[in-house]
Amino acid sequence: MKKSTGRVTLPSEQNFLAETKEMMERWGADAIRDSDGTKLDDEIKELDAKIYTTYFVARAHNEFAEKHLEECQQIYLMSLFQTALSEKISISFMDGYFAEQLRPDFIHDPKKYWEVIDRTTGVIVDPANWEANETDETVTILTAIPFHEYTVSFLVYAIWDPTQMYNHITNDWGDKPHDIPFDVRQPYSNEIMKKYLKQWLIDNPATDVVRFTTFFYHFTLVFNQLGKEKFVDWFGYGASVSVAALDAFELEKGYRLRPEDIVDCGYYNTAFRIPTKTYLDYMDFIHYFVAKEAKELVDIVHESGKEAMMFLGDNWIGTEPYGKHFEMIGLDAVVGSVGGGATLRMIADIPHVNYTEGRFLPYFFPDTFFEGNDPVIEANENWLTARRAMLRSPVDRIGYGGYLSLAYKFPGFVDYIADITDEFREIYDTIKDVKPYTGVKVAILNSWGKLRTWQTHMVAHALWYKQIYSYLGVIESLSGAAVDVVFVSFEDIVKNGVDKDIDVIINAGDEGTAFSGGKEWMNETLITTIRQWIHEGGGFVGIGEPSAHQHEGHYFQLATALGVDKELGFSLSTDKYFTTALEEHFISADATSFDFGETMKNVYALSETTEIIEYSDGEVHLSSNNFGKGRAVYMAGLPYSQENTRLLMRALFYAANKENEFTKWHASNIQCEVHVYPSIKKMAIVNNSMVEQQTTVYDGRGQASQVTLAPSEIRWEEYT
Amino acid sequence: MKKSTGRVTLPSEQNFLAETKEMMERWGADAIRDSDGTKLDDEIKELDAKIYTTYFVARAHNEFAEKHLEECQQIYLMSLFQTALSEKISISFMDGYFAEQLRPDFIHDPKKYWEVIDRTTGVIVDPANWEANETDETVTILTAIPFHEYTVSFLVYAIWDPTQMYNHITNDWGDKPHDIPFDVRQPYSNEIMKKYLKQWLIDNPATDVVRFTTFFYHFTLVFNQLGKEKFVDWFGYGASVSVAALDAFELEKGYRLRPEDIVDCGYYNTAFRIPTKTYLDYMDFIHYFVAKEAKELVDIVHESGKEAMMFLGDNWIGTEPYGKHFEMIGLDAVVGSVGGGATLRMIADIPHVNYTEGRFLPYFFPDTFFEGNDPVIEANENWLTARRAMLRSPVDRIGYGGYLSLAYKFPGFVDYIADITDEFREIYDTIKDVKPYTGVKVAILNSWGKLRTWQTHMVAHALWYKQIYSYLGVIESLSGAAVDVVFVSFEDIVKNGVDKDIDVIINAGDEGTAFSGGKEWMNETLITTIRQWIHEGGGFVGIGEPSAHQHEGHYFQLATALGVDKELGFSLSTDKYFTTALEEHFISADATSFDFGETMKNVYALSETTEIIEYSDGEVHLSSNNFGKGRAVYMAGLPYSQENTRLLMRALFYAANKENEFTKWHASNIQCEVHVYPSIKKMAIVNNSMVEQQTTVYDGRGQASQVTLAPSEIRWEEYT
Repeated sequence: MKKSTGRVTLPSEQNFLAETKEMMERWGADAIRDSDGTKLDDEIKELDAKIYTTYFVARAHNEFAEKHLEECQQIYLMSLFQTALSEKISISFMDGYFAEQLRPDFIHDPKKYWEVIDRTTGVIVDPANWEANETDETVTILTAIPFHEYTVSFLVYAIWDPTQMYNHITNDWGDKPHDIPFDVRQPYSNEIMKKYLKQWLIDNPATDVVRFTTFFYHFTLVFNQLGKEKFVDWFGYGASVSVAALDAFELEKGYRLRPEDIVDCGYYNTAFRIPTKTYLDYMDFIHYFVAKEAKELVDIVHESGKEAMMFLGDNWIGTEPYGKHFEMIGLDAVVGSVGGGATLRMIADIPHVNYTEGRFLPYFFPDTFFEGNDPVIEANENWLTARRAMLRSPVDRIGYGGYLSLAYKFPGFVDYIADITDEFREIYDTIKDVKPYTGVKVAILNSWGKLRTWQTHMVAHALWYKQIYSYLGVIESLSGAAVDVVFVSFEDIVKNGVDKDIDVIINAGDEGTAFSGGKEWMNETLITTIRQWIHEGGGFVGIGEPSAHQHEGHYFQLATALGVDKELGFSLSTDKYFTTALEEHFISADATSFDFGETMKNVYALSETTEIIEYSDGEVHLSSNNFGKGRAVYMAGLPYSQENTRLLMRALFYAANKENEFTKWHASNIQCEVHVYPSIKKMAIVNNSMVEQQTTVYDGRGQASQVTLAPSEIRWEEYT
Repeated sequence: MKKSTGRVTLPSEQNFLAETKEMMERWGADAIRDSDGTKLDDEIKELDAKIYTTYFVARAHNEFAEKHLEECQQIYLMSLFQTALSEKISISFMDGYFAEQLRPDFIHDPKKYWEVIDRTTGVIVDPANWEANETDETVTILTAIPFHEYTVSFLVYAIWDPTQMYNHITNDWGDKPHDIPFDVRQPYSNEIMKKYLKQWLIDNPATDVVRFTTFFYHFTLVFNQLGKEKFVDWFGYGASVSVAALDAFELEKGYRLRPEDIVDCGYYNTAFRIPTKTYLDYMDFIHYFVAKEAKELVDIVHESGKEAMMFLGDNWIGTEPYGKHFEMIGLDAVVGSVGGGATLRMIADIPHVNYTEGRFLPYFFPDTFFEGNDPVIEANENWLTARRAMLRSPVDRIGYGGYLSLAYKFPGFVDYIADITDEFREIYDTIKDVKPYTGVKVAILNSWGKLRTWQTHMVAHALWYKQIYSYLGVIESLSGAAVDVVFVSFEDIVKNGVDKDIDVIINAGDEGTAFSGGKEWMNETLITTIRQWIHEGGGFVGIGEPSAHQHEGHYFQLATALGVDKELGFSLSTDKYFTTALEEHFISADATSFDFGETMKNVYALSETTEIIEYSDGEVHLSSNNFGKGRAVYMAGLPYSQENTRLLMRALFYAANKENEFTKWHASNIQCEVHVYPSIKKMAIVNNSMVEQQTTVYDGRGQASQVTLAPSEIRWEEYT
């Protein structure tokens, strides 16, 4: 059988021609890329492969940036809280910030652009009553109320690109100049970015794909006085703010933003904050600007006969691949890093591009590729989680990053990736554009909706946080499951109701966050629409603190539907009699133990009709309740695991009143899954574990057969 | 040595004369009481002892009550939440209530006294748009908004006294008539209660002490449709409500209460709810009425030459022993049940009475006194916790309840109580009215202040609840510790500031409860007063969610002082670097392990100056922070134990900046304590455990000596 080729991107480096050729053949690669810190020799660029070249738009041009520091990027910061000990107090607003990254903007009048706030009352201090001092970087308030707390919201220039700063500090680059980020909203910057690109395209004839890394504004990444990360928000628009942007916003939207609209009490509008109307306006304003300007660059690339690819990260702010202006950019491709199933889907499902590419793990870096370590393990884990998602919606290409010469020294790894690339191509060639069978259609409901497709509950890209892992399991589980998933905002429901084809709505998160919804549940249309929809047969799965907002006798505003509420102390005087879990339940039929992660305290059943599925430590952690023709399931948390994926799937089918269809195209063993493609009459039975598994497999009529799968095996079968 | 006698009350019963005499001698008893279900023979009443006789004011007169059902007590109830499926809905408002206890009041116009509320919006439904039907006990709403939820707040007659109902159902009393509680606010009832009492006093010449059980209104105790407890609030004023009371309230306070002022979303203003102004007005109104009417009964008792004693329980609502009208009643004594140190202090510290009496455990009932069980263990545990408190503030008498004949069969128990009664008299004779040495003065700050002295965080008297035990440890620890304790309300602070002699303020509780304070912390005067007070040298100990209310960038409004805040998800993007506990700290110097009970999640240190004392599972559970000259300690919870008592004591001394005085009058062994009485130059070294203990004891100059104490020993020493 002829070895398959294509759809794979190889990183390469200098003085590595022969091995690069060999590796291209081994992995069937048809594209070669440079990486952070590597360049390609001309001979490599002449190989029979597409050449990707990294391109920075708004940094790495210090000769320009240094001449136009007034066009440097800006950011709003908030000082530390300071307690007033007397009426006259002085706040060193740069305390805690990294002077090499951030420089206060005294070019624009602080009295106009800064804000001093009494954080005890929320009142803005009249600018007549404070003075900003450039020399010692203080703000002196003259009329402070003793023992109130004050903050200063102030504008700075961000004089060091955060990604370069991170690499510079981490790798101890010493005297190497700091890349100064310039703002393409400014006239000279805007002109120069196009001019440079045009020249660069001429200078790089061998490049086939311009890999934008990325466009104009970095996600928010601010360092502290020790040169360490202080604030990181992969979704943060902080670095897109500037005097020019504020002025343009006013012109476009008809009102002026306050510093507080950006600074947000020091929370800086992270994705966990319920977005305000002003912040949504601001995001839209930046998104439109970025799309419009990026389109011009993409047009220039196209005019040169090359392709334009965007890296989903670093300076990606405002591109919003699921936003309404993204299509305008006209990109050929998006590439992003694949940490698991959810991140794969985040890339694979991006609309309006010709192709998507996933950068797989591990990076070919010395932290993994050292003697005595087996990089196959990480690659295998990464591949198994990503493959689940791929079988629902594949990326068009896969690739790797780092030093190829490092990977080359691990022949077992080279062999393994050869297998993976073949397996990927087989999957892709078989199922691309073939709709897989799904048992239920799920809507994930939160403040963000579609805009944050496959991005809910993330803080910094793919990092573990104690407060999020119990929710991230939801999207990770769904990313590779036989369900259709859409992301819906509260506003969508209020405006349009629930789409007819939705089987189950999921609302997961901690109270007051954008993911649970907090005060959004006070919206009369929202709450009545959801209640009615469930009552008429819809399914609801609430995880953590769904619909939580203390109001009129309920904490969960959907308490009556869920059959559970959370005890905050107010209703301790009411006896809680319903404390026994059912011995058996459809949802827990495959569970041998439960893992609710951080779990949720003090949830109790409201009546004897609540089906308690798990009860321990005086609390309900898993339950279901009939509400009219519908069902509402409660879960205390859902960290990602095969066990919890199964638990969630059963909860979805149960909530949807479709438990009779659960064993259609189904594997009994929780380590295995069945993906089915009706239009081509094929099915893939997969072993998601690294050990051999036996499972009963049910076909579309519920007929069972026994299957034994090798470790990590994917077995394709045809059916009639 | 002559055996001491007195200050002990013995329960007795019929046909038990000789043994009663023997037991009187053994225990040195000087008073005899009847108990629930027991009567005393005339011969017993003639013994050389005071005779206590139980007296019911507002029940146990069914011949009257049945003739005046219109004077029966009332209560406001809230129906279950009902989801509207159409515009016309019918709510069976008695669903879930016990028809034998509660009967809807259709005598008074529901349109005037009831309230139908749209719980989705909080809007009151216009009475023109609903009808109440007496026959089928429904309210029909004609203009409901589909998928809004509705409740009916309605008045009922409470036709069965809750204590008798409980005993009746528990003991299966069958046909025995139900005691009907009548309302002495009503004319006939008011007249009859006095008339009966006068006759009763004549009929009971042998009675020395009339033991009121109690006065007029029972704490809220409502049963469900199965005849089981549905709602219990030992502090609840629910059963004091009536049409007459509502009308009188309007006359007295100048405005009318809404049903919702009582029903409170179904939470019924439990002690955990931050009291509203209207509810405080209502409590004061009832307190005044009860005091005024009780005074008349007490006067009648006094005129007969007898004493008036009140039982702190059952129908005690409105007596408020720490309330401003209590003195007016003119009682001779209060007796209450002692579950531990806090309940002992709750009784012992009651002002304006000649003496207090504690009813100790165990009751002489078959559940403890059965063959094979050793009742000494329960008695010993009860005594050890109560003795700690007694050494700070003794009750004047102790006593027991139940069937003496049962206890009599356990000679070991009889011996043990003989020891206890002697030990009690020795303590009492030594330290009554002698002020003990205290190292620090502590103010417990919450919404209730002095009114709920030693009563914070209780639900039903002395019952264990998952949501309260981690806070109850605070008052239990303090009840027997060498500290002065006062209870202070937020309003006290706002009006009067912090008293000069306070060393440490404690704020303990879950967010939004009356004990933590919730939105009370928005009060500008409160927050600035406390901040200033700490900054100028005060100590603060916050437990659980102290000063918690999300506002302007803080969850803990005292976050800056505490040096910690709680992560709700909004600030995940800010790096949390301070994750290492100090190796040693004054507060944890005696701790070998930690028990924070239910503990508190996601608390983190704000800066490197926070002294982290315990850090685990990614959270701070114990810390301290310097704020100006003061210190603020954070604790995640404090269930009661000897270890936690020590931890709290160290925290108090540390917060007060008095750690140098900690080893003054101090026992190193956490199972032991030292109580010192400077004016009489005596000290008591106590072993609070049931096994032998060795300890270093430090005197007032910090001089150490070694002491070995027998199990439970109290050793008196004189010093110079």
